[in-house]
Amino acid sequence: VTPMAADRLSINQITLRSLPFDRAVETLVRAGIGWIGAWTGSVEKFGVRRSAKLLSNSGLRASSVCRAGFFTGKNPDGGGLDRDANMRAVDLTAEIGAETLYLVAGGVTDDKDVIGSRRAVVDGIADLVPYASAAGVMLAVEPLHPSMCADRSVVVTLDQAIDIAEHFDAAEVGVAVDTYNVWWDPTLDDAITRAGPRIVSYQVCDWLVPQPHPVFGRGIPGDGVIDIPALTHGVNAAGYCGPIEVEIFNERIWATEAPLVVELIVSRFNTSVLAPI
Amino acid sequence: VTPMAADRLSINQITLRSLPFDRAVETLVRAGIGWIGAWTGSVEKFGVRRSAKLLSNSGLRASSVCRAGFFTGKNPDGGGLDRDANMRAVDLTAEIGAETLYLVAGGVTDDKDVIGSRRAVVDGIADLVPYASAAGVMLAVEPLHPSMCADRSVVVTLDQAIDIAEHFDAAEVGVAVDTYNVWWDPTLDDAITRAGPRIVSYQVCDWLVPQPHPVFGRGIPGDGVIDIPALTHGVNAAGYCGPIEVEIFNERIWATEAPLVVELIVSRFNTSVLAPI
Repeated sequence: VTPMAADRLSINQITLRSLPFDRAVETLVRAGIGWIGAWTGSVEKFGVRRSAKLLSNSGLRASSVCRAGFFTGKNPDGGGLDRDANMRAVDLTAEIGAETLYLVAGGVTDDKDVIGSRRAVVDGIADLVPYASAAGVMLAVEPLHPSMCADRSVVVTLDQAIDIAEHFDAAEVGVAVDTYNVWWDPTLDDAITRAGPRIVSYQVCDWLVPQPHPVFGRGIPGDGVIDIPALTHGVNAAGYCGPIEVEIFNERIWATEAPLVVELIVSRFNTSVLAPI
Repeated sequence: VTPMAADRLSINQITLRSLPFDRAVETLVRAGIGWIGAWTGSVEKFGVRRSAKLLSNSGLRASSVCRAGFFTGKNPDGGGLDRDANMRAVDLTAEIGAETLYLVAGGVTDDKDVIGSRRAVVDGIADLVPYASAAGVMLAVEPLHPSMCADRSVVVTLDQAIDIAEHFDAAEVGVAVDTYNVWWDPTLDDAITRAGPRIVSYQVCDWLVPQPHPVFGRGIPGDGVIDIPALTHGVNAAGYCGPIEVEIFNERIWATEAPLVVELIVSRFNTSVLAPI
């Protein structure tokens, strides 16, 4: 790991899906990685306080927590908006000292009202902001890929995420850029410039051709069609200098031994994420 | 079929994929439908001149022809840009008297240059316009859903399609709106208004939840989450009053007897496409 990579490389734990939280932490520490992207379910399973202590003792920092939200539509985990779960996610984020809490908007309501669904997202965030702010937790509005508009996120472009974030103080609500979700957007370069300091998290993975699976077929940086170094350059130029999370939903990656996956990602981080453009 | 539906309902022949061109024509005529959306391969297989004569004798009109293009990336049918195939598609469109020829842009080039790929689309269309114009054929730039940006179309929003069309005379190049491809776009309503008379074709189908298949899992209007009547209202308000094509890629529909599919579409056309909003 070069000094530059060691500073900024984070591996989201979904990339090492088979490992429980403590094993994921151990694997990353052994590889010299500085950051982990955490998931609420995994942290809760290991215990929030234990997770916080483990991170503190290991020196590994949490770059983000996935996730709260589902302010509209159906929550894929069942039911509608779960305010309590969102507040618990805020508490967890604060307790493990993570930089940001990801917000996933939720999908279209049963009455097919995509505009009303989008209004509900703003209302839902407005409801959560005071609680998050009091806990010192930065919320990150993440646009998901338009292929997930129906069931997961009516927020599908970076401009739309910025519009939502701008309802709130920049110290409270920012936006998250994930290469997989936004690379196709013809207005992306302008949106990244516009976002500027609102960018509070940056995730990378690649778009494979053909797609092995619509949801669980994302690629390691370098294996697909996204010019990730160019996007990294844009996000850096906008002023973001925080951790860069490699987050890969891919059944073949999940079937590979975690240390090998990490080694591959470290190698690709220099050639296919931070490479000069 | 109500008078209004009879005027505007077109069924794209891919919806009746198992039928050869003459059987598709016969099925639609029997059902009292006025329009068919044609595909080049099927028309060529039956014979272009024979197809033209069959349409002329039957009174069925071709609302559009799918498709020319692939000005960038790889053509899924093999190779790169095929100028001869595009010119043959223009000739076919003119010969069967179809209203418009659909243009599918093509995907990202091997060097991951999505911006350069988009420039190549404008250049490719510019190259085709004089030939199409001389043949009296209107070209329709169709934005595809962003899930197809990598391999089929770097043109993924209606605004982007309008930007491209505006390089050319409105009598030569327009845009096509397909509900499935554009419904997720937060700026869609403004883009439809902006497009105005540039809209030269309108296709409808629905987005199912969950998606049975990423490509071949589209839904009959009314079965999914898209508020199609609202979009139809917007497209009408923009000034479009031509045929409305029901185009459904769905393996279950393809396994159903064609007359039943047509009957279902006629019924849904009034309740879920043209319904008052």
